Amino acid sequence: MTVDAVITRVAELARDHAPAAVIAVGTELTSGLHADTNGPEVARELESAGLRVDLISSVPDDEHAIASALASALTRHALIVVTGGLGPTHDDVTRDAAARALDLTLQADPEIAGALRQVTSRHRESGATAQVLRQAEVLSGATVLTPKLGTAPGQVVAAGDALVVLLPGPPREMRPMLRTLLTAAERHESVRTLRTAGLTETDVQLRVQRALSGTSGIELTVLATPALVDVVLRDRGASPDGLEHAATAVRAALGTAWYGDGEVTLAEAVLRIAGAAGMTIAVAESCTGGSVAAALTDVPGASAVFLGGAVTYADDAKSSLLGVDPALLATRGAVSAPAAEAMATGVRKRLGADIAAAITGIAGPGGGSADKPVGTVWFAVASADSTTSEVRHFFGDRHGVRTRATVTALDLLRQALVRRMDPTGGGDGA
Amino acid sequence: MTVDAVITRVAELARDHAPAAVIAVGTELTSGLHADTNGPEVARELESAGLRVDLISSVPDDEHAIASALASALTRHALIVVTGGLGPTHDDVTRDAAARALDLTLQADPEIAGALRQVTSRHRESGATAQVLRQAEVLSGATVLTPKLGTAPGQVVAAGDALVVLLPGPPREMRPMLRTLLTAAERHESVRTLRTAGLTETDVQLRVQRALSGTSGIELTVLATPALVDVVLRDRGASPDGLEHAATAVRAALGTAWYGDGEVTLAEAVLRIAGAAGMTIAVAESCTGGSVAAALTDVPGASAVFLGGAVTYADDAKSSLLGVDPALLATRGAVSAPAAEAMATGVRKRLGADIAAAITGIAGPGGGSADKPVGTVWFAVASADSTTSEVRHFFGDRHGVRTRATVTALDLLRQALVRRMDPTGGGDGA
Repeated sequence: MTVDAVITRVAELARDHAPAAVIAVGTELTSGLHADTNGPEVARELESAGLRVDLISSVPDDEHAIASALASALTRHALIVVTGGLGPTHDDVTRDAAARALDLTLQADPEIAGALRQVTSRHRESGATAQVLRQAEVLSGATVLTPKLGTAPGQVVAAGDALVVLLPGPPREMRPMLRTLLTAAERHESVRTLRTAGLTETDVQLRVQRALSGTSGIELTVLATPALVDVVLRDRGASPDGLEHAATAVRAALGTAWYGDGEVTLAEAVLRIAGAAGMTIAVAESCTGGSVAAALTDVPGASAVFLGGAVTYADDAKSSLLGVDPALLATRGAVSAPAAEAMATGVRKRLGADIAAAITGIAGPGGGSADKPVGTVWFAVASADSTTSEVRHFFGDRHGVRTRATVTALDLLRQALVRRMDPTGGGDGA
Repeated sequence: MTVDAVITRVAELARDHAPAAVIAVGTELTSGLHADTNGPEVARELESAGLRVDLISSVPDDEHAIASALASALTRHALIVVTGGLGPTHDDVTRDAAARALDLTLQADPEIAGALRQVTSRHRESGATAQVLRQAEVLSGATVLTPKLGTAPGQVVAAGDALVVLLPGPPREMRPMLRTLLTAAERHESVRTLRTAGLTETDVQLRVQRALSGTSGIELTVLATPALVDVVLRDRGASPDGLEHAATAVRAALGTAWYGDGEVTLAEAVLRIAGAAGMTIAVAESCTGGSVAAALTDVPGASAVFLGGAVTYADDAKSSLLGVDPALLATRGAVSAPAAEAMATGVRKRLGADIAAAITGIAGPGGGSADKPVGTVWFAVASADSTTSEVRHFFGDRHGVRTRATVTALDLLRQALVRRMDPTGGGDGA
């Protein structure tokens, strides 16, 4: 098969929603040391193209285990993608396992071998050459997916009606080959992910179910992380435009709790709205310890909007960095409405920002008391014309409290920015 | 079988290093929306008990897919743990799938049904009862693992010589049942994970291989994340104390690059050394945007050592929060040795800390230039008697540069603290 023929065949399988499996190879995966990230990533891409992934497996760097997983996947799947185990070391046995499972032989691809020799002669001792050249071994009859210079090729072989695809494990090498394979497969856009903040999973579920009543052919999944809830709508035979109509109805039902679609993060939503409003942001953090600033600065281009922040963990830091009155901290406590408000107004003024958020609370496990138990967090948002504060009580361990507090701070900033853009608040369809 | 008999059988399988498989059930897993975390967690527990996990699979909430994965796992594994799909909704079909794969019938367990009815009568509309009672259905002949009141039981059935274990998906319900199963299995402590910072993967590999030359029965895995390298030593038939001797030799070879064992994080190591030395810490961050502070404050008890920090993203913030001379920033640039040093000394003085680190660099994708390309990051460490700075050039995208810069800042703090504790630097066996 030529590469073009492979691409065409994959597109046919995708159009037919054929069953697909992904097998990730690596002893670190089955020992539980590392979570498999290739499996979910490949599955997502295959599903977007229309394939139906109903198996993701991790197996160790062991020829028998890989061959056995591959053989059993072949009984039920039309496309099987194996990632990893194509490198030069003695642990890299995916080629041998595939040869065994498919009853094929291995032979050196002269072009790949040439490229590997070229790199080896420049960078390595001659003793390493034989080992490196193992990467040039391809299954008899395989279509080669060209690698970057000096790395392992991808390989595609037909096994009966099925296609078996071997891809390198490193994501940088794997991704371009996977993209090549899916070139001709239309992205079905059969999924819409709508993201929300500020509502419970149950509230989201109720609103969405009401919005979807009467529609058919739409599969609903509600996914809750500690502080955010995603709504996934999947086209399962809806009418044309049915998915888009459903998404529109759900967005309206979610109101201002909806902050974006797809992969957008809450921090991106905050920066986008602030950028559109021409406003700059600052933050003052105690219990979140820099997590809010870190989330904002993780977004490329954050510097156009985000000026900076203070992590005022110790009480003295709240005074020395932000000018919070030590007497206020002594009388009202660092976890209080006036402390949060003084932190927000302090950081806003020091950095000359248009809007600022502050977070001060008790993440635990220590530090709680009867009237301020672990999980008590005060938030404040300050702008030129107003300063507001509110308290939340989060359950969970330290990590859970910090995660929820970080998301809540970002969402309070977002809600304040949305209200400034549209003071009527007409966006909330609840 | 009684529960005790199951526990004894699992201990026997563990002692024999029997092959085990884990199957995680959930459509959100195979669609790539959520990564499977149950699989790796269960695998880790089973491996610690001595079992050899060579398959972790994710399958959707689909009776055929689950039954097929279970049937094919049964051909090669003595213990198969299935998590998820035991709840009350129509999506929860693991019971039915297991009945199909094992050719067993389902019947209601009267005790579980009673407990479910008790909860249902208090909390739910009567229409929901039938659905909730599905959770009481157990495989004929199954040993029931008692759940919390009103949730699904775990189930264990023998299938030939193999054991099939069904556990609920929610980790809170799954964990206690898994722990019960492994009660009698000795934890083999057959693995040592030694963590390093500051060395490349190749350097670590070379040092460790040299340290292990002449030893046998130890399997070595070197795991590299973007900026840290873990060394995993696994007992594969070493002499008594062989694993511990190997770990000791490897620690010596790694010298000060070794920062701890097991699950310890680099931030924990920094806080532990600073705490032992009675020193307090502050940080000033530009391109890492709060990530260093967030990593430190993620550790319970961080407040004993970490005072706070400044996220000075905009140039003005470096001056207003830390007192960095604007003229210095104008002439030398914000990404420069003097800027990093002024940030470190500034935050140290403002917060009254014993030692402070500063990070200023270009994370990209924008902001690079010919002499300061994306990935250029300056670091400084300031204490009462010295201020030092150094530059690193990281490759990778924004996220990669930020991750590497965060880890490097923590490691420079750690190395500075280690040198203060042991000025001879005798710890490095390189």
